[in-house]
Amino acid sequence: MTQWYFVAALLTILTSSQGILTTLSQSHGKYNYDYATVPFLAEVFKLLVSSFFLWRECKSSTRPRMTTEWRSVCLFPIPSIIYLVHNNVQFATLTYVDTSTYQIMGNLKIVTTGILFRLFLRKKLSNLQWMAIVLLAVGTTTSQVKGCGEVSCDSLLSAPMQGYMLGILSACLSALAGVYTEFLMKKNSDSLYWQNVQLYTFGVIFNIGRLLLDDFRSGFENGPWWQRLVIGYNATTWMVVLNLGSTGLLVSWLMKYADNIVKVYSTSMAMLLTMILSVYLFNFKPTLQLFLGIIICMMSLQMYFSPPSTLVDIPATTVKAPLENLKEVTVD
Amino acid sequence: MTQWYFVAALLTILTSSQGILTTLSQSHGKYNYDYATVPFLAEVFKLLVSSFFLWRECKSSTRPRMTTEWRSVCLFPIPSIIYLVHNNVQFATLTYVDTSTYQIMGNLKIVTTGILFRLFLRKKLSNLQWMAIVLLAVGTTTSQVKGCGEVSCDSLLSAPMQGYMLGILSACLSALAGVYTEFLMKKNSDSLYWQNVQLYTFGVIFNIGRLLLDDFRSGFENGPWWQRLVIGYNATTWMVVLNLGSTGLLVSWLMKYADNIVKVYSTSMAMLLTMILSVYLFNFKPTLQLFLGIIICMMSLQMYFSPPSTLVDIPATTVKAPLENLKEVTVD
Repeated sequence: MTQWYFVAALLTILTSSQGILTTLSQSHGKYNYDYATVPFLAEVFKLLVSSFFLWRECKSSTRPRMTTEWRSVCLFPIPSIIYLVHNNVQFATLTYVDTSTYQIMGNLKIVTTGILFRLFLRKKLSNLQWMAIVLLAVGTTTSQVKGCGEVSCDSLLSAPMQGYMLGILSACLSALAGVYTEFLMKKNSDSLYWQNVQLYTFGVIFNIGRLLLDDFRSGFENGPWWQRLVIGYNATTWMVVLNLGSTGLLVSWLMKYADNIVKVYSTSMAMLLTMILSVYLFNFKPTLQLFLGIIICMMSLQMYFSPPSTLVDIPATTVKAPLENLKEVTVD
Repeated sequence: MTQWYFVAALLTILTSSQGILTTLSQSHGKYNYDYATVPFLAEVFKLLVSSFFLWRECKSSTRPRMTTEWRSVCLFPIPSIIYLVHNNVQFATLTYVDTSTYQIMGNLKIVTTGILFRLFLRKKLSNLQWMAIVLLAVGTTTSQVKGCGEVSCDSLLSAPMQGYMLGILSACLSALAGVYTEFLMKKNSDSLYWQNVQLYTFGVIFNIGRLLLDDFRSGFENGPWWQRLVIGYNATTWMVVLNLGSTGLLVSWLMKYADNIVKVYSTSMAMLLTMILSVYLFNFKPTLQLFLGIIICMMSLQMYFSPPSTLVDIPATTVKAPLENLKEVTVD
């Protein structure tokens, strides 16, 4: 239970590598492979790893707890369904707003996760923790504010209303998927690997469905998806697959043994780490707003996770001391 | 003692009016009067008001406490001397850095005030209050980040090193003047008006000195300063004078009955208020960073001034409740 911050740190590093590896897997700025096949293979990887560990658990002396009732199993496709709806909302949102506005609105999911976490999982948060969550969203947004040298320069609130409504819906769906998964993982003391196997089996199925749908939509002009599966993959592409799979497994672990807020902090810190690494790797110009965003997020981290006693150790007796220490110079 | 937040709110409103009135006092974008005469007249106004109230106190039955020893009086020109040095450092800084970088660096004085407040006045701050002070500086800086449409576009850390060193020195001097004034006002229970009379008498003298020096530097080409004193003043200019004088009196009150941190919050909030009002009055384009800066500063305000018990009311007993509330679905 105490190693959640180690898992969270690892998740931060892997999530931040994801963006960098994906960029590195391109050649001359474009993909030589079908990117849609990557999440499918990552899902297969997660299923294989979880199945292996479940098999090992089954062989051990203490049999793992496994709920196989249909009314339990039938809850596991729901995260996949939410993600499917989310993907479509995301797509619709992008027809109304540009990508940088979309990226900025994405930070809303930090706040919606806090709200759904409170409402559905009935976890109490202190006012300071609520403020920390809002600050985390503000901090990540600050780091993304367009600098004065950048090309695209859209004004605040210039997109049509539908764009913003869909953006909010998207943030809610993303939070709902996270909170629902946490509920699934924590609702009983089933083996994590058994829960994963259920989750990823449906994940694989839904990914196949999505690839098939894409094929039908494009009229099979690139052939069926299984023929494109590893075509054009290089070593970096395989690392992208393994990395995506590993982050999924870590998130699953956090959902069972930590919570959604820990995950949100991990992925937000990962975003900042990616931006810092991009300064070195891709010669991005560091901006003042990135620096400010990092400070804000670090403060938020402290506010959320520090034991309150380390934050507000107010020495009530010494508050009035300075005045008494000063030399009195009076006329009489 | 309880009305400090009322005084602080009034200071915020008046400080924020100052920038707007000063802009309104221009005609066709330039001053028809000598702006250097405004602080002098404001100092005279403060001296007159304080003298009047001191005279009233002297007439009342309870004689005000007044320390007239030389070794007490001789401490009162020191704030004026610090401001004089500060003005020159400010001038030197601006030869190295542009005005927007200078403005950004000005937020450092929030942090230096916190540090000198702790060191010289020996006031203890909780970790949360330190974080709040840093966040206030980050928030005001965020609101000033250049948007993507703005003309001047200097990179972070592009000015020579001396510029940054002088900027830090400037922030320290500004903080020192504030902290020293608080020490002066609180070191004994003298009448506030008597302390003000001493402070502003030296203020008037130093302002005359400064105006004379300017005259000598320019070789009296505009005549001596007293001939330019109210030339070209319009009604708005007089409001600028009264406003500047009034804010000075309020700051003096806060230094005696509240502290430097309250003043720093007032003036930072005033800066944000000015920016909001400028959106309406001067058709400034509201930026995302202004919005983010306001949220950060509001959070900081809460963190610093809220009673800790309202921030970290962690219900230790209910943390584990959600898991027990969930329906157990297990196989056995």
